[in-house]
Amino acid sequence: MIVDMLRWLLLCCFTPLLFAQADEIRTLLNNSAEAWNQGDLAAFVSGYEDSPETTFIGREVTRGGTKAILERYRRTYPSRDAMGDLTFSELEIRILVPSVALATGKYQLKRPVAAGGDASGRFTLILRKTTAGWKIIHDHTS
Amino acid sequence: MIVDMLRWLLLCCFTPLLFAQADEIRTLLNNSAEAWNQGDLAAFVSGYEDSPETTFIGREVTRGGTKAILERYRRTYPSRDAMGDLTFSELEIRILVPSVALATGKYQLKRPVAAGGDASGRFTLILRKTTAGWKIIHDHTS
Repeated sequence: MIVDMLRWLLLCCFTPLLFAQADEIRTLLNNSAEAWNQGDLAAFVSGYEDSPETTFIGREVTRGGTKAILERYRRTYPSRDAMGDLTFSELEIRILVPSVALATGKYQLKRPVAAGGDASGRFTLILRKTTAGWKIIHDHTS
Repeated sequence: MIVDMLRWLLLCCFTPLLFAQADEIRTLLNNSAEAWNQGDLAAFVSGYEDSPETTFIGREVTRGGTKAILERYRRTYPSRDAMGDLTFSELEIRILVPSVALATGKYQLKRPVAAGGDASGRFTLILRKTTAGWKIIHDHTS
C-alpha cells in the first residue's frame, strides 16, 4: 500500500520531467531536420556530441566527433539535390535515466530520381544530456 | 589540483567496476553466440529483456518481449542451416551509467550457399542492468 503510494508519488513528480526531457530531444531532432532541409549540414551535425567517443554506424563506422561525421555526410550527400527533403516519423523517445535517452524512428528523403530518388530507413540514437543540452553520442542508421 | 586528485581517486575506484560490468556483457554475448551455434534460439533470446518495451530494429520493428523476438528469429532463420555459424567481432562496450550500457559490434554468419550464403552486418545494443543481470532492451541490426 505504502509502496503503491510512493510509486504514485514518484510517477507524479517525474512524469512531467520525463515529458520535458523528451520534448527537448524532439526539438533537437526537429531542428536537425530543418537544418538539413536548408542544406546546412554544419548545423545538422551540431546535434552530435563533438567527442572522439561519438560513433556513427551506417555502412561502416565513423568516429572522431562532429568533424568526421560532417565529412561522412558530405561524402554521402555531395549536393543539395542528393540531400533531398528530410522528414522524421514514428519517433519514440525513451529517457533511460535522467542523463541518457534512446530515440528511434524512421527517416524519409524525398529526392529527384537524378539525385538518387526517394530513400528511407530507420535510426537508433543514444543521447546524453550535456551542459550544452542533449547530444547524440551514437547513431545507427540503416 | 584537488579536483585532479578526486578525479584520479574516482577513476581508481570505478575503473575496475566498469571493467567488471563490461565483462558481464561480454559473457552474455559470448553465451548468446554459443546458444545460436547450438541451434538454441530460445536460449539466444533470453539475452533480451522480456518486456513489451523491448524493441528490435531489423528491416522492420519488432516489439513485445522475448516471445515476439523469438518468433522473428524463427521466421528469419527457419532452419539450423539458415542460422549458420555465428561470430561477433569488433565488440565495443560502453557503460553509460552504472545501469545502462551501449554495445556495438559486427556479426558474421558462415552458411552454406544453399542456406543463403555468408552474411554479416553491424549491431547496436542497449542493455539495462536488471535483477537477472544485463539484458538487451533495444537491438538495431543492419
